[in-house]
Amino acid sequence: MEIAVDAMGGDGAPDVEVQGALEAVRELGVRIRLVGKKELIEKSLNGNWNKENLAIHHCDEWVRMDEAPLKAVRKKKDASIRVAFDLVKKKQVSAVVSAGNSGATMAASVLTLGRMEGAERPAIASVFPGQKGPVVLIDVGANVDCRPKHLFQFGIMAHAFASVCLGVKDPKIGLLSIGEEGSKGNEQVRLTRQLFESSNLNFWGNVEGRDIFTGEVDIIVCDGFVGNVALKLTEGMAETFAMMLEQEMRSSVAGKAALMLGRRSLRRFSEKLDYAEYGGAPLLGVNGVGIICHGSSSPKAIKNAIKLAARYAENDTLERMAGLLVKNKGG
Amino acid sequence: MEIAVDAMGGDGAPDVEVQGALEAVRELGVRIRLVGKKELIEKSLNGNWNKENLAIHHCDEWVRMDEAPLKAVRKKKDASIRVAFDLVKKKQVSAVVSAGNSGATMAASVLTLGRMEGAERPAIASVFPGQKGPVVLIDVGANVDCRPKHLFQFGIMAHAFASVCLGVKDPKIGLLSIGEEGSKGNEQVRLTRQLFESSNLNFWGNVEGRDIFTGEVDIIVCDGFVGNVALKLTEGMAETFAMMLEQEMRSSVAGKAALMLGRRSLRRFSEKLDYAEYGGAPLLGVNGVGIICHGSSSPKAIKNAIKLAARYAENDTLERMAGLLVKNKGG
Repeated sequence: MEIAVDAMGGDGAPDVEVQGALEAVRELGVRIRLVGKKELIEKSLNGNWNKENLAIHHCDEWVRMDEAPLKAVRKKKDASIRVAFDLVKKKQVSAVVSAGNSGATMAASVLTLGRMEGAERPAIASVFPGQKGPVVLIDVGANVDCRPKHLFQFGIMAHAFASVCLGVKDPKIGLLSIGEEGSKGNEQVRLTRQLFESSNLNFWGNVEGRDIFTGEVDIIVCDGFVGNVALKLTEGMAETFAMMLEQEMRSSVAGKAALMLGRRSLRRFSEKLDYAEYGGAPLLGVNGVGIICHGSSSPKAIKNAIKLAARYAENDTLERMAGLLVKNKGG
Repeated sequence: MEIAVDAMGGDGAPDVEVQGALEAVRELGVRIRLVGKKELIEKSLNGNWNKENLAIHHCDEWVRMDEAPLKAVRKKKDASIRVAFDLVKKKQVSAVVSAGNSGATMAASVLTLGRMEGAERPAIASVFPGQKGPVVLIDVGANVDCRPKHLFQFGIMAHAFASVCLGVKDPKIGLLSIGEEGSKGNEQVRLTRQLFESSNLNFWGNVEGRDIFTGEVDIIVCDGFVGNVALKLTEGMAETFAMMLEQEMRSSVAGKAALMLGRRSLRRFSEKLDYAEYGGAPLLGVNGVGIICHGSSSPKAIKNAIKLAARYAENDTLERMAGLLVKNKGG
């Protein structure tokens, strides 16, 4: 399997992308096509590669982090993210991984590959480490003003992803709200709940913010505004917790000793919380596989995103998703 | 100063409320009026009190956690939460603390005390432990479908609260969104931003979920749906973190030793994260002081909520808030 990596996206591009790609080649046995400015990529590779499992696909342009996504993608036909999705369309690669402007990644995928039938709004899913197993939160930022039917479609898309890619049998779907009773929540939640209740999906009911970590349900559906606030909140909280814990430990002799003894446990704990472990967020609802990485991704996060992309592309997730969307179209 | 405590609210009522009240009397030098069923309160007090600083105000009814708030408050004229706010209205007490049905507390306060002029929607604020100092998040659940002017009013109300009760000089206000640029966010955020920008308030701009912990701003404004998701998320995350950390430490000999040595540091760390430290969430925008506690509050949380209520009531916060609301009414 060959996967395209947008070498020009991300805050540390192209070095981080190149390192992540080299790690993926070594550890995962996939082939990588690095899409971007040839001179820069070659300089970053520094001779350290093998044409059998790594190729460079040159293009001159890229979308910057601060550009308006849709406009930039439309104008820059030779931008790395567009070229990468073109390679998917031509079936030269199986998936795209990008740590660049996430709005541009979304726009380029829709423009190039098109939306799935019944997926009016493609969405971004994020996988959280729940106490009982992974929890898929969808949408985490693609759609800020959603209608109930869009939220319902997010649930269907995540169902296919969780069952095939995460191996969850008949995933339980929860709707993010502010109280478990059906009467609570806003207008959007009340109407969406009706759609889920009249479907054949394994709908659990409303869940609260805390359930992103309990693992009571496998999938949590929300609009992209709320989902993005939640995503950023957990990132900020993980950093703050780690910092406060260390400060507290360093303030006493016993604490300092505990910090030394517990270093390995603390590191494993941090790794569990680190979003780099999951690598990236899958883009659901388009006719092809795209993984969106954090702009400040590490090489390890890029490698793990490539792993997720391969898992997403090698199974029949896309077919299952398309089938499920069409089946629930009337609902 | 005398403060009314709704003895019938909360999952552990009346025992938790009674214990919290007794601690407050001992440690804070306030007088407490316990509002609720006399027999139950007396049984819980078990003779362990002094009429000088503790009184019982009998009433026969109360609002259960699962009741529809507005309906229950309207129907039950003798419910503890209504009676408590009546005591504020009659100037017999200075504030109300309740761990009961929060919707009912909100409804009873509005019904009894009335809204402040210029505060079309009273809101619930919550104080987070930011890296640089306390951060006030408003609204955390009172209003699920807000208009831009309501969000603007939340900012004004929190400004008065933060400057008087938390001692923050000219508090910086941020608007919760999903990107720092003004073009990002949803329609509601874009319109609210304009209102803040044309006011004289110290408006910082849009902030993201992570800023609830960074302390980059002193106040973060959002609608009650998003705010409640964020509040519950942080509660769930704090619990999950503590559990995962302990599991990880217990899985190795060095970790176990570290856990023993670091016990005191870890406890101080947990205390910093514990919402019981702040005790409760102030109700802003009504003509009087009310503090809403978590249903599963501990006696310590009740005591701290009483402390916050006293600080809120003894200063000129209400006057400042009312003045600021009227001043910005046209804006």
